[in-house]
Amino acid sequence: MTLAATLNVSLGTRSYPILVGPGLLSSPVPAQLIDAGRICLVTNTTLLPLFGASLAERLQAAGRTVVCVALPDGEAYKTHETLHLIYDAMLDAALDRKSCVVALGGGVVGDMAGFAAATYQRGIPFVQIPTTLLAQVDSSVGGKTAINHAKGKNMIGAFHQPRAVIIDTDTLATLPDRELKAGLAEVIKYGLIRDPGFLVWLEKNMARVTARDPVALEHAVMESCRNKAEVVSADELETGERALLNLGHTFGHAIEGVLGFGTWLHGEAVAAGMLLAAELSSQLGHVAETDVARVRALLLAAGLPINPPKVPVDDLLAFMAVDKKNDSGRIRLILLKSLGNAYLEDQVSHETLRNFLSVRLARSA
Amino acid sequence: MTLAATLNVSLGTRSYPILVGPGLLSSPVPAQLIDAGRICLVTNTTLLPLFGASLAERLQAAGRTVVCVALPDGEAYKTHETLHLIYDAMLDAALDRKSCVVALGGGVVGDMAGFAAATYQRGIPFVQIPTTLLAQVDSSVGGKTAINHAKGKNMIGAFHQPRAVIIDTDTLATLPDRELKAGLAEVIKYGLIRDPGFLVWLEKNMARVTARDPVALEHAVMESCRNKAEVVSADELETGERALLNLGHTFGHAIEGVLGFGTWLHGEAVAAGMLLAAELSSQLGHVAETDVARVRALLLAAGLPINPPKVPVDDLLAFMAVDKKNDSGRIRLILLKSLGNAYLEDQVSHETLRNFLSVRLARSA
Repeated sequence: MTLAATLNVSLGTRSYPILVGPGLLSSPVPAQLIDAGRICLVTNTTLLPLFGASLAERLQAAGRTVVCVALPDGEAYKTHETLHLIYDAMLDAALDRKSCVVALGGGVVGDMAGFAAATYQRGIPFVQIPTTLLAQVDSSVGGKTAINHAKGKNMIGAFHQPRAVIIDTDTLATLPDRELKAGLAEVIKYGLIRDPGFLVWLEKNMARVTARDPVALEHAVMESCRNKAEVVSADELETGERALLNLGHTFGHAIEGVLGFGTWLHGEAVAAGMLLAAELSSQLGHVAETDVARVRALLLAAGLPINPPKVPVDDLLAFMAVDKKNDSGRIRLILLKSLGNAYLEDQVSHETLRNFLSVRLARSA
Repeated sequence: MTLAATLNVSLGTRSYPILVGPGLLSSPVPAQLIDAGRICLVTNTTLLPLFGASLAERLQAAGRTVVCVALPDGEAYKTHETLHLIYDAMLDAALDRKSCVVALGGGVVGDMAGFAAATYQRGIPFVQIPTTLLAQVDSSVGGKTAINHAKGKNMIGAFHQPRAVIIDTDTLATLPDRELKAGLAEVIKYGLIRDPGFLVWLEKNMARVTARDPVALEHAVMESCRNKAEVVSADELETGERALLNLGHTFGHAIEGVLGFGTWLHGEAVAAGMLLAAELSSQLGHVAETDVARVRALLLAAGLPINPPKVPVDDLLAFMAVDKKNDSGRIRLILLKSLGNAYLEDQVSHETLRNFLSVRLARSA
């Protein structure tokens, strides 16, 4: 028997459950929740032998027609060329509007499979089965789907909520160390923006989490999903509070973009970006230097980068200029009033930002 | 002063007006309705000198920043390659979520600009300014956006409602005859599926309409938009009545696809498809042969094709197999119970359909 805890994203007729627990993938849950006759199972070449083939067999044994698409693995492939691999498979299998797309993988697979589901025949159902920590605690919940454009990360996309999110925490056992750490950046984010109690728990338990203690990991996933579900339920389309989930992301996306998507992992760039946000918040007089030191220490304990790469400031600013949060040419940043309390700041001038980044990048040399 | 009649699409917070009248493009209306600071004006190379350049100047004179994208003209360019021309221009101009896309053109421009707006940064506002009869009476209203895939028309798309539809009936003066006639197929469609009174009006006034009598043309546009707005307001996402708007389209899309998109105009294929639907309805015992003759006569009066092209039946059936209306492998057709009363038919077997098409295509040789 599987003991799964269930959370809920409350969005009226588009509400859906998040199931969290060990062993879910080999339980009857996926076949119960994915009730379409035809299923397009999107995964990547790494995960197909680990979890994909057996999941496809289970679904077929339950009477479903399953077509598998194994994408190349990595953020560098989150492009429209790869997206078309999914479309081609969907059309070859003659999927219709009652069919279901299943995303089995990390953030790249989930974002791309979700966008394919959002746009195939103007939108068909999909289910998220995230297998990386980053996808389990962040990208699989909330309906954001996208692909990258050479000029900006996640620039082309849609809001399209999944019908269910199935999180089997056992999948974290095979996750490379670097990816586990990258996922912890988003876990820490929830503490920093809205949950001071969780932040303190993380400070106390980070060693257990990085050592993959199953109980500690599952708690970290549950608390992250609870925070994410609350934010998304209150502000699905990011007209308000949901923007706070982007703490560290404006800097982070720019870092990823300048280095070339895939060089730094998303979570690594977000970690460096969150510390930049904390430091800028401190410079603006909101956060004490001792609190910035807490952020730095927690990121270090999680094995995450605390210094941005040494890249030209103008290149970073060029990427920040096309961030999706911007409004009429003004750069909008998520900063901290205090630890556990984020806000949207749109009064930082380009000059202040340039000076801040110039000094900071010189220091990280 | 401009005398514009206004209709309304009622969709709660996403409701929007449809303005219909002569001279709207050179009136203050566009600048009043398009209130974004940055505007991406999408048109095609034919329309840019006719209407695009002067509209851009008017918007700039009203203080807006305008970037123009002139797409190659024609259904053959409704592809993801062309879509990327729009994305590139939007990113080069650093459009944000408060910017607006304006689609100035026919159905191809409207569908592609609308899909770009639906997916750029997960969705930004757009306004439709349709300049062909087909776009004015059908595709600009209702929020369906899409591009073609080699394996099916409009296979990749999104529901994304415009903020307004501005229909300047003066633009029809420069429309090539063939395109005017193609648009009449969709006009006739409203009479056939739900408006017997309008059907009778069309039978009496088709000569005035094809002679471009401005009063008759404006009446045809208004009545078509009224019908479309009523259907969309009742069933935005095509879970019911809206599917009836696809009368003739399953056959029509297959004709377009087999010939290669752009060989026959969409309206021409729909005309031949509507007659096929009427004939199959008659074969199934719903519609009298005299009523089929009325449909044939009206299409002939509008200068539209009444015979499908002589193509292999299996090629047509292959395209029909991936139609978006299909449900679990069953082909769904819109047929007629009587003139002015359409219904969704999903009980026609593949064999019946194949026999019907084989006989019919042999006759059109």
